[in-house]
Amino acid sequence: MARDLKKLISQMTLEEKAGMCSGRDFWHMKGIERLGIPPIMLTDGPHGLRKQNSSADHLGLLDSEPATCFPSAAGLASSWDLELVNKLGVALGEECQAEDVAVLLGPGANIKRSPLCGRNFEYYSEDPYLSSRLAAGHIQGVQSQGVGTSLKHFAANNQEHRRMTSDSVIDERTLREIYLASFEYAVKEAQPWTVMCSYNRVNGNYASESEYLLTKILKEEWGHEGFVVSDWGAVNERDDALAAGLELEMPASGGLGDRKIVEAVKSGKLSEEKLDRAVERLLSVVFKAVDNSKQGAIYDVESHHQLAREVARESMVLLKNEDNLLPLRKEGKLAIIGELAVKPRYQGGGSSHINPTKLEDIREEIVKSAGAGTLVTYVQGYDLLSDSTDKQTVEEAKRAAADADAAVIFAGLPDRYESEGFDRTHLRLPANQISLIEAVAEVQPNIIVVLSNGAPVEMPWLDSVKSLLEAYLGGQALGGAIADLLFGAASPSGKLAETFPARLEHNPSHLNFPGESDRVEYKEGLFVGYRYYDAKGIDPLFPFGFGLSYTTFDYSNLVLEKSVIREDEKVTVTVDVTNSGQRAGKEIVQLYVRDIVSSVTRPLKELKGFIKIDLQPGETKAATFVLDKRSFAFYNVDLKDWQVESGEFEILVGRSSQDIAVQGVIRVESEVGFQPLFHRNTTIGDIMDNPQALAVVMEWIQSTPFADMFVEQEGEGSEMAQAVLKYSPLRSLVGFSGGALTDEDLARLVQLLNTKA
Amino acid sequence: MARDLKKLISQMTLEEKAGMCSGRDFWHMKGIERLGIPPIMLTDGPHGLRKQNSSADHLGLLDSEPATCFPSAAGLASSWDLELVNKLGVALGEECQAEDVAVLLGPGANIKRSPLCGRNFEYYSEDPYLSSRLAAGHIQGVQSQGVGTSLKHFAANNQEHRRMTSDSVIDERTLREIYLASFEYAVKEAQPWTVMCSYNRVNGNYASESEYLLTKILKEEWGHEGFVVSDWGAVNERDDALAAGLELEMPASGGLGDRKIVEAVKSGKLSEEKLDRAVERLLSVVFKAVDNSKQGAIYDVESHHQLAREVARESMVLLKNEDNLLPLRKEGKLAIIGELAVKPRYQGGGSSHINPTKLEDIREEIVKSAGAGTLVTYVQGYDLLSDSTDKQTVEEAKRAAADADAAVIFAGLPDRYESEGFDRTHLRLPANQISLIEAVAEVQPNIIVVLSNGAPVEMPWLDSVKSLLEAYLGGQALGGAIADLLFGAASPSGKLAETFPARLEHNPSHLNFPGESDRVEYKEGLFVGYRYYDAKGIDPLFPFGFGLSYTTFDYSNLVLEKSVIREDEKVTVTVDVTNSGQRAGKEIVQLYVRDIVSSVTRPLKELKGFIKIDLQPGETKAATFVLDKRSFAFYNVDLKDWQVESGEFEILVGRSSQDIAVQGVIRVESEVGFQPLFHRNTTIGDIMDNPQALAVVMEWIQSTPFADMFVEQEGEGSEMAQAVLKYSPLRSLVGFSGGALTDEDLARLVQLLNTKA
Repeated sequence: MARDLKKLISQMTLEEKAGMCSGRDFWHMKGIERLGIPPIMLTDGPHGLRKQNSSADHLGLLDSEPATCFPSAAGLASSWDLELVNKLGVALGEECQAEDVAVLLGPGANIKRSPLCGRNFEYYSEDPYLSSRLAAGHIQGVQSQGVGTSLKHFAANNQEHRRMTSDSVIDERTLREIYLASFEYAVKEAQPWTVMCSYNRVNGNYASESEYLLTKILKEEWGHEGFVVSDWGAVNERDDALAAGLELEMPASGGLGDRKIVEAVKSGKLSEEKLDRAVERLLSVVFKAVDNSKQGAIYDVESHHQLAREVARESMVLLKNEDNLLPLRKEGKLAIIGELAVKPRYQGGGSSHINPTKLEDIREEIVKSAGAGTLVTYVQGYDLLSDSTDKQTVEEAKRAAADADAAVIFAGLPDRYESEGFDRTHLRLPANQISLIEAVAEVQPNIIVVLSNGAPVEMPWLDSVKSLLEAYLGGQALGGAIADLLFGAASPSGKLAETFPARLEHNPSHLNFPGESDRVEYKEGLFVGYRYYDAKGIDPLFPFGFGLSYTTFDYSNLVLEKSVIREDEKVTVTVDVTNSGQRAGKEIVQLYVRDIVSSVTRPLKELKGFIKIDLQPGETKAATFVLDKRSFAFYNVDLKDWQVESGEFEILVGRSSQDIAVQGVIRVESEVGFQPLFHRNTTIGDIMDNPQALAVVMEWIQSTPFADMFVEQEGEGSEMAQAVLKYSPLRSLVGFSGGALTDEDLARLVQLLNTKA
Repeated sequence: MARDLKKLISQMTLEEKAGMCSGRDFWHMKGIERLGIPPIMLTDGPHGLRKQNSSADHLGLLDSEPATCFPSAAGLASSWDLELVNKLGVALGEECQAEDVAVLLGPGANIKRSPLCGRNFEYYSEDPYLSSRLAAGHIQGVQSQGVGTSLKHFAANNQEHRRMTSDSVIDERTLREIYLASFEYAVKEAQPWTVMCSYNRVNGNYASESEYLLTKILKEEWGHEGFVVSDWGAVNERDDALAAGLELEMPASGGLGDRKIVEAVKSGKLSEEKLDRAVERLLSVVFKAVDNSKQGAIYDVESHHQLAREVARESMVLLKNEDNLLPLRKEGKLAIIGELAVKPRYQGGGSSHINPTKLEDIREEIVKSAGAGTLVTYVQGYDLLSDSTDKQTVEEAKRAAADADAAVIFAGLPDRYESEGFDRTHLRLPANQISLIEAVAEVQPNIIVVLSNGAPVEMPWLDSVKSLLEAYLGGQALGGAIADLLFGAASPSGKLAETFPARLEHNPSHLNFPGESDRVEYKEGLFVGYRYYDAKGIDPLFPFGFGLSYTTFDYSNLVLEKSVIREDEKVTVTVDVTNSGQRAGKEIVQLYVRDIVSSVTRPLKELKGFIKIDLQPGETKAATFVLDKRSFAFYNVDLKDWQVESGEFEILVGRSSQDIAVQGVIRVESEVGFQPLFHRNTTIGDIMDNPQALAVVMEWIQSTPFADMFVEQEGEGSEMAQAVLKYSPLRSLVGFSGGALTDEDLARLVQLLNTKA
């Protein structure tokens, strides 16, 4: 419905306008009845709906209305399946409509800088390309149902440690290429109704007060049309935040924030036009919600549960499968070991905690899938509430394992290890789980470990087990999904969206995580995730993009549509992928790009395309990718823009970041570049590399005693002599001249260079 | 002789004073005959004297008067022998007196940040404690002969790439603890007559124009009494450099620099008092040289040669010795392979290049040591001037090796790989040497590789050889030293003063070396050398401090004089070291300190003591170390001083940085600390950790609705709830209060904290 928002705003008092800029309570915006503005509800996501009753605690941590609990983002990302993510978004949107929720908070597109971050389970990936595409898919799905999203936590909020005061210190190129890029595509492509600013500071300013982030980049560069909401309690100084581009403070501030805005307008610190524009953004979203609200909507609880199972199945990652131990045969004796099989960890702790509509029992699902021909036993193995090993419990597990043909050990991180609010300090499983695995391995060679965890763990026990299924936090239908995969109803098809390090110390942020006092420096720069392991030659436990299947895939016939393109052209890349095994399966085909020569430091490869393909045994399909300027570009901080340097790029297509199957080379031509000013300390080598500059100098030099200076020197010691010359600044010419040249001569040369070269 | 320098200066014209501040020619200061000021000579070192004739080229790279060529610093450092370094300094001083050289440039105390730095062979170590002690020993030795030194290159000049324009960007703590610390002890303890500023920029300013480095730190904090000389051509703006504390510009500037100084004084930009103080520093060194000059001094060329042999022997490092292949028996057939055996690389290229008094022939020395009972053959193996493998040459080597009982392969870096002026881009040996080693290994199991190189190389061939002797650049008597060690006339006793990485990518500066354009960021911070490999859990090829012997050493009985000290006390640590093998040998005993708990990021261990002990078989001696405040301190950038945090420290004593044999714990008590200001974003956790602050808040809180806020919460979700509370800033109290508290209440609390806590 078309509304004249400007007119509406003109009917509001200053106090009413300021009032629109903060919440009514913990979960609602304010409404203004006389103007027909309703108090819409925003509530937590993103992997399910957490609508709290009005009696909820003020920290917002307790129970909520039942909703479908889907796998959390860490698992979901491992599906690499944009269609599936979209489908999940549609389901979430339906649940929001049924519960009259206008905006579902999420998704979270923060980059997994450290595996220790307590909230990694809510985030997608260490890679911004993958993360931003998944975020866009989620947003598009939810918003297709007339429900808003809130892309969060913007920006550079990559740890929980001191999250409300910590300053993320990041160089601009890294910020642009990694941390902002993870939001950029999602904003531009999917237009989330709202974006949520984060708690932390970025390069000195609170994200909530960063005009650079909220206005210059988000609204102006990326064209975000909705409003920015603070993370709950993230506002520091309300008037500064509004000025920077934060429209909505949440939750309610007891009138304090509104009062500050009013005072700032009255004192002239803040222009009323700015406030009006903020209110216009707020109202446009409010009325979009109103217009799209579906009164009396309901959703099919059971079909959403089945979708949760499908998502979980697509998300789990088979990391090891020696002797093809999996899939299990439906016969003989199977021991299920580990309390996580009966008290599953299927979601993370904190603001995203869902009250599920139902919860599958893993053990029961296994029994169902195993069929009557299999004898399934269960033993506890360890106590989830403790780290200490109980000898008797372990002995019981050993007996059960020894008596079976194979043992499935359910291991993972308890809630107390991993949650919103705090970071882990190590990557270990509880000690009693480690000792359990090692003890069982003494008596049973056929061990399958199923892990439930929101982020990587170290696996000193990996050599003791044959198979490993990473189930992440699989949502309410994880039981069926695990059973489907263990017995081969489906082949595993997830791949890691993050690197699993062999040891904590190897991760790129180590030494700079979580920072000192309130300052965390992102000194690894661009080298986050696989970019780091690649460049440092450190072998990860499992690389980014890795995941096994019950079948195998062959790659062939990489075709580049063109061998040379201009930077403003697109190019299509196709690769044939064949299911060369005996079972149906899905392959996630990954395309990486490498700049062969660059004037700046670049990662050895970067993900620039992916696609998930379903293949029957023997079947071949073409995987098609379209590359554009951004696929080849880096962010040039001098140019303040993305830049492609003319030259050759490798196109690498394969099964994971470390398993490139086919490759080609393309040349990209660009005419854009950054021409720095010449000065007295421009090196002679830089002049020699620049034909125009060299010509200017050669002309000038005819009038000096140095006409022979640029003639190549030969003979002994020439490497050093060449280097000395190359690295000498122009001012050295004056020094070398023994008084024949002056600083004034040099100044004239520099001026010539800056005008003529 | 006492002189009234102030009076002398008062007799000088402004032009004469300015003139004293730059060289007369390439190697001399200016003299003023009418005032009896002679033109003293400064000439290159540091591992020998490079006095050029007046006919030398202006870049100063060609031939010089004969002088003893001692092992270069990389090798010398591996001796860890301060007495020996001092003795070498004395010999150098004698040669200077004989050649009428007033100041011998060097030693170089730059930290080996990257193994690629082309000038690493002239530097000591990756560790500032070791480097600064060695530098002090060198300075004391030379200066004991009445000859000055020039401690160089000050500061943060850790690469040759773009060395005249590059900006080393380093955080202050790293600068203080690593890069400046390598100079600090040497300046304070040994008072070099001069310090040479480096070419590069440091955090934006040219070192030659850095008042912070040259005046505030060097002259004021460290109390340097001599003068600062520019590296040859390092002056950018002469008047700015003088103002910053650079007294002498070298070489001659054709009058330009002098003129600028005169103009700056006349225009009032530079005070004449400042110029006078500079001239006073210059003259004090000139007359120190005059007063200590020994006319007609000579030195014993042969005894200096023998000293060079002793130094070389003490400096070489045995890195591998499987099956005790070394020492070689003096019988059978021995094949010497590799052109480096007859064209030895015994020194580095660039300003330190010496014209040796003589040069031992390695092959001849081996024949001499092997005795008549051994048949020694020699084949070339590869061509030093090329990287390509010549099949016939290799076949010849294989035949010679197959026909012998053992083969000694001489390998290493040719001059064209490694020099002042440029950095390496990889750590590989020439390809033809690698293929030679691998080919010989096919036919001969008993291979000894002797390496001649100034810095680490990768060794993909290491498993193919039984023994490895790192000879570094061994000086003119390297041949005899190698023979002495191969046949056991002495046991190897050197240990690495730097880490050998398994691969280039593992080194800490990788990804940030040599920087982009003119900016190199030291993002690895404090984690240089072993500090990095320790903390990152990356296995080096050979760790810092590692070296084998022909005998073995046992450690026992670590005794701490006290178990608790105040930070202003010293403490003695003794450890018994026993030669548990069959041969005499020397052990380098290393003491490292670890701060068990710290408020700032610290390395896992840092070298704080070392001693080289000579032991007969079965003999035991006590190694004694004295630790002081600095052994436990870090540089606190807020406090602007070194600080010890009260607590326990581990004392780790052992054979290398990765082979700690005995350890103990000491408690250090300090009352110094830095109390940051409280503000609205001080976290509640920080308040709770500070008893005084907590008391203030608890008193204040009685008047608020939050008296129960600081009571520990129990029950489910408590980890997260606790974390949320702990990381909340004080301003959250206002938000939580729902309007009951105001910003004014908060401001009062902050004021109370800053006055009462």
